[in-house]
Amino acid sequence: MQDWRDALGESAARSDEAAIAPFARTLFRSAPRPAGVVRVHSRDEVVAAVEVANRRRVPLYPVSRGRNWGFGDASPMREEQVILDMSGMDRVISVDPDLAYAVVEPGVSQAKLAACLRETAPRLWMPCTASTPDASVLANAVERGWGHTPYGDHFAHVAGMEVVLGDGSVIGTGFGQSAPSSTTYLSKGGPGPSLEGLFSQSNMGIVTRVGVWLMPEPEHFRAFFFTLNEGGSLEEVIERLRPLRLTGVLQNPVHVYNDVRAASFVESPSPVEQAAGALGPDARRKLRERHAVGPWNATGAFYGSRAVVWANSRTLKRELSGLGSLRFVTPQLLARVERVARPLARLGIGAARTVAEQISRAQAPLDYLRGIPNDYAMAGCRWRVRELTDPGALDPFANSCGIYWVVPTCPARGSDAQRLVDIVESVCHRHGLDALISITLLNGRMLILPVHIAFDRDDADEAARAEACHHELLDAVIAAGYPPWRVGNAGMPALAHTGSWEAVARIKKALDPRGVLAPGRYGTEPPAEPDAAVN
Amino acid sequence: MQDWRDALGESAARSDEAAIAPFARTLFRSAPRPAGVVRVHSRDEVVAAVEVANRRRVPLYPVSRGRNWGFGDASPMREEQVILDMSGMDRVISVDPDLAYAVVEPGVSQAKLAACLRETAPRLWMPCTASTPDASVLANAVERGWGHTPYGDHFAHVAGMEVVLGDGSVIGTGFGQSAPSSTTYLSKGGPGPSLEGLFSQSNMGIVTRVGVWLMPEPEHFRAFFFTLNEGGSLEEVIERLRPLRLTGVLQNPVHVYNDVRAASFVESPSPVEQAAGALGPDARRKLRERHAVGPWNATGAFYGSRAVVWANSRTLKRELSGLGSLRFVTPQLLARVERVARPLARLGIGAARTVAEQISRAQAPLDYLRGIPNDYAMAGCRWRVRELTDPGALDPFANSCGIYWVVPTCPARGSDAQRLVDIVESVCHRHGLDALISITLLNGRMLILPVHIAFDRDDADEAARAEACHHELLDAVIAAGYPPWRVGNAGMPALAHTGSWEAVARIKKALDPRGVLAPGRYGTEPPAEPDAAVN
Repeated sequence: MQDWRDALGESAARSDEAAIAPFARTLFRSAPRPAGVVRVHSRDEVVAAVEVANRRRVPLYPVSRGRNWGFGDASPMREEQVILDMSGMDRVISVDPDLAYAVVEPGVSQAKLAACLRETAPRLWMPCTASTPDASVLANAVERGWGHTPYGDHFAHVAGMEVVLGDGSVIGTGFGQSAPSSTTYLSKGGPGPSLEGLFSQSNMGIVTRVGVWLMPEPEHFRAFFFTLNEGGSLEEVIERLRPLRLTGVLQNPVHVYNDVRAASFVESPSPVEQAAGALGPDARRKLRERHAVGPWNATGAFYGSRAVVWANSRTLKRELSGLGSLRFVTPQLLARVERVARPLARLGIGAARTVAEQISRAQAPLDYLRGIPNDYAMAGCRWRVRELTDPGALDPFANSCGIYWVVPTCPARGSDAQRLVDIVESVCHRHGLDALISITLLNGRMLILPVHIAFDRDDADEAARAEACHHELLDAVIAAGYPPWRVGNAGMPALAHTGSWEAVARIKKALDPRGVLAPGRYGTEPPAEPDAAVN
Repeated sequence: MQDWRDALGESAARSDEAAIAPFARTLFRSAPRPAGVVRVHSRDEVVAAVEVANRRRVPLYPVSRGRNWGFGDASPMREEQVILDMSGMDRVISVDPDLAYAVVEPGVSQAKLAACLRETAPRLWMPCTASTPDASVLANAVERGWGHTPYGDHFAHVAGMEVVLGDGSVIGTGFGQSAPSSTTYLSKGGPGPSLEGLFSQSNMGIVTRVGVWLMPEPEHFRAFFFTLNEGGSLEEVIERLRPLRLTGVLQNPVHVYNDVRAASFVESPSPVEQAAGALGPDARRKLRERHAVGPWNATGAFYGSRAVVWANSRTLKRELSGLGSLRFVTPQLLARVERVARPLARLGIGAARTVAEQISRAQAPLDYLRGIPNDYAMAGCRWRVRELTDPGALDPFANSCGIYWVVPTCPARGSDAQRLVDIVESVCHRHGLDALISITLLNGRMLILPVHIAFDRDDADEAARAEACHHELLDAVIAAGYPPWRVGNAGMPALAHTGSWEAVARIKKALDPRGVLAPGRYGTEPPAEPDAAVN
């Protein structure tokens, strides 16, 4: 630690409890406690920190903002790793309103970029996720996170990385590899081999800067909310949506989610229900009635000129006809309804209260769909938390929220989606846990099916079941030919056992010869079995 | 060669003149003559060939179909290299009509895939280029070629490579890295670092298979042809088109091309004009009058439901109003006009003949725009050829066509486009050569500006000027901050002198430790200056 203090200043490297605590906690059952924390504020400081790590052969675990909830949070892969905390590198370096992109550092949160755009380029929409507004924009893209706008495949919508390699050398990717370049942030590619993908879901280098593409505000924007009829078929929904996504009628990665997932944003099962394990068919039917949701539901939006939005809306309506109810909502409509319903609700008029509540529930997705981050969906983390110690807080650490994500992919076919759902429900229910499932039509060919395994961290038995469920489910989907889109730290061992990581390991060795960057991450070497550590 | 014969059969490896000739010719001024040719018919034979190359330390130069016209054709980087000819690996391995993709080997030509789709999935459109139908689909994507349909960024629309590395090991990329996987060909990504980009514009491995995404035939399709007014401004055209491309009103990479480029498909300058060097302003004005083209012209198309196509057409019309003439053409319209005009033209009626000619000229772009490859644009290779020895042939080797491509990128701003055009014209004209320029709006943020430097290979002086022009122009655009999208074999030295290739070299060493794959390609080591070799 002293070497880092010498290089970066007295307060930059710490190993005291207060400094370590934010990186030693986890939403998993357990996670390794880091050996220390090094804080950096610039690319050059990252280089200096990496040089010390090489000299002293101490592994670093880079963290952007540490909001990787349910995928490893801010915690390292192993105990001996020292956190490289980049949250202080939080500059929005530039915004180009004509070419529609921003250049950001790892510490820039969704909220910060959103605020910056409101100031400097209010007609540009950022790609945003339904996770906390505190999360890093860069890290989400680099981990191949996904979101709700037409730019929802986040890694596909960034270009031009600045990367510090494991030996401390700095490279640009794509068109940024040669200098000078006016096209660094404008396209993937660049003459010669494209390295950008190497630094996604990776421990090959530390991304210290990237260009994030922004979407010009469309002339018109219209969200839709679909509710599948009781007894309706998920297969049919997927079969109807696929051609629309393939042909671009659906421009954004539409989200399809089951009843428990829909309900998780507004309530939790009762203690009695929790004690009985996963909710059974009756409880789920009642849940659906209570919240006016279907067995499956879908949310998306249309963007463009008024004529295009209307034409595409009509096509969707035609294709989903007979399957369930479809409602269209615009921000303008919501505002009008709100102006009427809110005062009435305050007067205690029941129907108006319901309407007002429905409006609140529509507002958050409406915002994600147009690049406005908000923390509405964070409430879903509380599913199965027995007692909210801080009912007002959406930070999952403020309560005993536990989360494991398992994120299989499958072909965009109804039969595959249903088969995968069956696997997921069977494994989750066997462990007495609900399968909170959403399905993202990232493109028209493949589905991502994130499963939120929610548990109460204060319940040791449930935490153990959640961990076992995560491991078993990950193995099951891989074995079934539905490989994960991404895995959390807890999933690295499962990944290392499948596929060939030999070429990846060779490249890792070439770029990080002493293995100082996040060893054990993303299968480039079989990680040690995680120790049960401080939670 | 005997080792290869032992491994692959008596006729597989040859170094006689007949075998070498197709790989020793070039459309450049000169190119190295390979040491031999090894023909393979399967992935396993590629592995066997690479193993021999490692054992004997003889470098291989992999060629898919050898139609890389003007970028190196079928010729190697250096004389000692042995061609690995994969044209015999020409299987369309599968076509999935629902998920809309095909899996192809390197030897599959555009024509072959098109024919296969007509048979098996006539409602799917392939991404196609305006180059010869004989060109390899896989190689074009892997070299990051571009085309005309909405899938025009070809590398962005493939997924799931099978790659033979330099040591003979075989890997899958993306979701194909783990087995079994049902999503190999359906999305980029895959858990862990994404290697796919590494094998584009690269000598890191030999791509032996890839999934190519196909576009579902839209309900309606409508092409547009725009002609800028005399005296009109390219800057203005780009400024008007950019927002339309950014917002998805323009769904395909619209092509914008200058007068000489437009004319090059139908005529060549007269011998007198050729002798005077580049065409001057007067000659170009006459050319424009003769062919009814503008100083700049644009071609693109709309795809979707009838309502969406009409809405987007109206938007384009509004945005381009006042700048020039805009015409919309559908295949149905063309067929109707043709039914009327052709018989009249055959009767010698002048106006009808003109109309018939215009129809022919519209037919080819109309076909590219909907994924039907054809060789119309190959006629452009004949620009500056003094005497057509085989007037009926479009194969550039059938006549003395010479081509160098220089392909800079620039921000999608009018001012940048104009500045780059000025640089290009100034360098080309100084060498007495025309600047045949097209501009591709690959996405809404960046332009690719391919410059076709056409010359007559039988004119030694002109060939020397063309080569000098290529080198000088490539250096000039790099220096101006407009790095190339791709370079041909002749451009590798310029590339090696710019940017940092150190990380690329390290990865190359890790994946191809003995350097047997195409040494000198894409800057992974500074190539020797090319020898003047057999043409």
